Amino acid sequence: MKNSLSKINKAFENRIRLALMSLLMVEEVLDFNQVKETLDLTDGNLSSHAAKLEEAGYLEIEKRFVNRKPQTLYKATNEGKRAFRDHLDGLEEIIRQSS
Amino acid sequence: MKNSLSKINKAFENRIRLALMSLLMVEEVLDFNQVKETLDLTDGNLSSHAAKLEEAGYLEIEKRFVNRKPQTLYKATNEGKRAFRDHLDGLEEIIRQSS
Repeated sequence: MKNSLSKINKAFENRIRLALMSLLMVEEVLDFNQVKETLDLTDGNLSSHAAKLEEAGYLEIEKRFVNRKPQTLYKATNEGKRAFRDHLDGLEEIIRQSS
Repeated sequence: MKNSLSKINKAFENRIRLALMSLLMVEEVLDFNQVKETLDLTDGNLSSHAAKLEEAGYLEIEKRFVNRKPQTLYKATNEGKRAFRDHLDGLEEIIRQSS
């Protein structure tokens, strides 16, 4: 249990960060509005959690203009994918041990 | 994904609370020192997370004396067990969707 616990990563404890990384394991690149609608979040909520993942080095945020409209794109870094897999391993072990 | 996310319970997001509830799904009653050693926690850390679970109605804390020594016992409430199962369902769904 102690080992499983050490795999749990503070950066992914929050459910919004967990869900955002989870989506980015499946889709290489996601647009801000797609994520916002999929997870039913407010702008501020999504931005602040994305910023935390970026600070940790787990998320790349690209801002650009498409037809003069601003667009924000999210992509998990390789480091982020590795760290997230470890986190899921830890969660799976804890879930297995408790059922 | 939105539905899975709504099953994630803020009370269990933190890894220490996750692990403590997980242990209490398997063992009906656990002593403070057992949990502390199993999870490699400090006294203050364990106490404060246990108190949060108690406030949420998910944990019963019993303090008693055994051979004049104080002992603290933890037990998950039925509400806590139900809420924790929902939380694990949400986690499992998110894990499944991301792998």
